[in-house]
Amino acid sequence: MMIDWPLFGIFLATTYAAGATGAFFSPDGWYDRIDKPKWTPPNWLFPVAWFVLYICMAYAATRVAISGSPLLVYALAIWGLQVAFNTLWSPVFFGLHRPGAALLVLCGMWISVLAMAVSFYQTDMFAGLLIAPYVVWTSYAWALNFSIWRRNRGAAQPAGA
Amino acid sequence: MMIDWPLFGIFLATTYAAGATGAFFSPDGWYDRIDKPKWTPPNWLFPVAWFVLYICMAYAATRVAISGSPLLVYALAIWGLQVAFNTLWSPVFFGLHRPGAALLVLCGMWISVLAMAVSFYQTDMFAGLLIAPYVVWTSYAWALNFSIWRRNRGAAQPAGA
Repeated sequence: MMIDWPLFGIFLATTYAAGATGAFFSPDGWYDRIDKPKWTPPNWLFPVAWFVLYICMAYAATRVAISGSPLLVYALAIWGLQVAFNTLWSPVFFGLHRPGAALLVLCGMWISVLAMAVSFYQTDMFAGLLIAPYVVWTSYAWALNFSIWRRNRGAAQPAGA
Repeated sequence: MMIDWPLFGIFLATTYAAGATGAFFSPDGWYDRIDKPKWTPPNWLFPVAWFVLYICMAYAATRVAISGSPLLVYALAIWGLQVAFNTLWSPVFFGLHRPGAALLVLCGMWISVLAMAVSFYQTDMFAGLLIAPYVVWTSYAWALNFSIWRRNRGAAQPAGA
């Protein structure tokens, strides 16, 4: 399968625009202080994981787009939906310090990422498999966000939060 | 042209997920206080404009998706790109109070919205015309953001900003 480079470029730019949100809104003093589970990943893992996931996602989307399948328009529509949720999460969690609201965003993101994996798989099997790590990471992020929300529910918001 | 309702639903959900960012990050005391040009729209106009623009965008994207054009995958890829920039702007402007950084986001958004209008027009003429108000609104938003950035460049960031 020949790769369509302009198309891959647009999809990769999209993931980086979504990822810019994580650069603007990243772990801060509030995040360092709040009660987190033992299995919280080290901060350096987040950008590394996203770097790999974004390349996989962009390549998978390119494969879907050039697959010629009649289902590809649904798959690309769902791609746009998960982009919105992906961009939204960091500002709500790290910007507003609202783990509860961020958990709702992650619910929408998890559903759209799972739907994307399924629709990509139906369009191009390998593209679907490339989304599997993203499903795993989003599930892990959901569990982490849920745990943080539960542990800090009663805690007063720090000043300026 | 028959409308594909599930597809329209996904596109509309995408715009609302992107728009949620404007609900989480909306005009605050900082925005009320900073120096703004005379032609700044009243705050109530923003959600009204977006409500209309989102419906136009979602319907236009649906028309593109079902057009059968070989160019539609580029058009839908660009759709995803502008979704990311659209979601990113409000947190950077209203959340971080950084008009300069927000202006850079708007540059990316303006280019992607214009590219979307052109690619939609090439795929389905009416879909392209439906994006025209979005181009106008984004241009206006850019001019407003630019003016606010210039007027408040020297001003100290208020506490908590």
